[in-house]
Amino acid sequence: MKIGLVGLGLIGGSFALGLKEKIENLEVLGVDQNTDHLFKAKELGIIDEISTLDEICRQVDVIILSIPVNAIRQVLPRILDQVNGNQLVVDFGSTKKAICDSVRHHSKRQHFVAAHPIAGTEYSGPQAAFKELFEEKVMITCEQELSGQNQLVVFNELCSHLDMKMRFMTAEVHDLHLAFVSHLSHITSFALSNTVLDKKDTESHIFDMAGSGFASTVRLAKSSPDMWAPIFQENKAHLLEGIDEYIAQLQSFKESLEDGNEEELRAFMQKANMIKETVDQLK
Amino acid sequence: MKIGLVGLGLIGGSFALGLKEKIENLEVLGVDQNTDHLFKAKELGIIDEISTLDEICRQVDVIILSIPVNAIRQVLPRILDQVNGNQLVVDFGSTKKAICDSVRHHSKRQHFVAAHPIAGTEYSGPQAAFKELFEEKVMITCEQELSGQNQLVVFNELCSHLDMKMRFMTAEVHDLHLAFVSHLSHITSFALSNTVLDKKDTESHIFDMAGSGFASTVRLAKSSPDMWAPIFQENKAHLLEGIDEYIAQLQSFKESLEDGNEEELRAFMQKANMIKETVDQLK
Repeated sequence: MKIGLVGLGLIGGSFALGLKEKIENLEVLGVDQNTDHLFKAKELGIIDEISTLDEICRQVDVIILSIPVNAIRQVLPRILDQVNGNQLVVDFGSTKKAICDSVRHHSKRQHFVAAHPIAGTEYSGPQAAFKELFEEKVMITCEQELSGQNQLVVFNELCSHLDMKMRFMTAEVHDLHLAFVSHLSHITSFALSNTVLDKKDTESHIFDMAGSGFASTVRLAKSSPDMWAPIFQENKAHLLEGIDEYIAQLQSFKESLEDGNEEELRAFMQKANMIKETVDQLK
Repeated sequence: MKIGLVGLGLIGGSFALGLKEKIENLEVLGVDQNTDHLFKAKELGIIDEISTLDEICRQVDVIILSIPVNAIRQVLPRILDQVNGNQLVVDFGSTKKAICDSVRHHSKRQHFVAAHPIAGTEYSGPQAAFKELFEEKVMITCEQELSGQNQLVVFNELCSHLDMKMRFMTAEVHDLHLAFVSHLSHITSFALSNTVLDKKDTESHIFDMAGSGFASTVRLAKSSPDMWAPIFQENKAHLLEGIDEYIAQLQSFKESLEDGNEEELRAFMQKANMIKETVDQLK
């Protein structure tokens, strides 16, 4: 089997490494705008050959797009123009509606599977990739009814090699849910990081006393702006709603604190404690 | 040596377990309002004997207060009334100014060391205690100039057994810094948890897609309301400032998003990325 990997970062790189462990004679051709990433990915064994978009459209069985969501919307229609036979094109973008909409009426829409693996770390680039990243994680696919049967079978097989759990939903529900359980977390971390960094201007030793709790809460603030700026823009409507609801929670807490209302403060925290059962199930 | 441990939760319990590993013949007497915690702490070997406040004031060399900050302010003056000789009383409260103020003019002020170990997890109770919690962590002491020399020597020795790093500062600076690098993190987590829990009312499967990033960001939302309500109230002024500055960051991000201003979004994240060097040094 031949795979064309477009985007050789954490997600694409880890997917390729995981599959190489499980599929004999798997050949991976790599494409990336970043030349350093191309050579690094080759050196790390993520790809076997440096290639081009046109070349992989001619040669491979499966094309995987793991690049920023705005770039996916740009290249996906051009790739679909060129595919034929049973070729499969998958994207791993973190928003799904705009991408699905961009090829909804493409004559070769059936070659495309819109997917999103719920896996990642705060690191990026091929050097961040590791073969276990996808193990037992959730792979979401959207608008499956528009994908070809052959393409779905191939994609499900790839995911089953990595012991992934398949979930299906509409692109709309995907984007709304992800806004709240992923994208909003990143915004809260970026904002917390900036709040404390600003304080450092007058309190230069402020980080001396930061502990593991702070580290956990701002971990996502290390994430890549190149990846996240397009995600935020493509999921703007849901995120504006999420930010408003989040600020309303903070305002409510602040009022209870201003009033010295201990009962309200406790009720706020006791409700929040119910996240325990959810968090304990996650790695 | 005899230690009287008042409050047998994660912090007090871990401190005792760590010292028992290093000091031969260390005897620990325990006091707690929660009877279950008393028996559990005895069963786990955190304490050797169940005791009372009056009894430990008579018997022990070192009294450690690891109870909610409002409770510390209540019992600390009563304990100081009873101590004599070279007895040392230490508190481990997460706010320092109100506690220091409450005994500033006590005739036995020199027996007291105001301390705060920068260590913890989101779990609580004696069953959460473990002997490695304090290893190589920071121990802050405030207003050392009001503590007796003998008392400081004893406390520093205890901390050196646990390989802790000592830091000194005013209670005012402590409370301001902790508001930003610890207390605010807890508020942002509680608020994020409540935001998503509210969304669950209409989107029942919303947690299906939560991943490790979400877990990291809401981890602190599992923290104990009993411990945190008094901390928030005692550090109210700094926290109101911190919440305002945090909301201002979120508003600024929201405006950039509304305007579709990609340059501003990237600048916001690039600045936040500078937290990397801080976070990578923390466990």
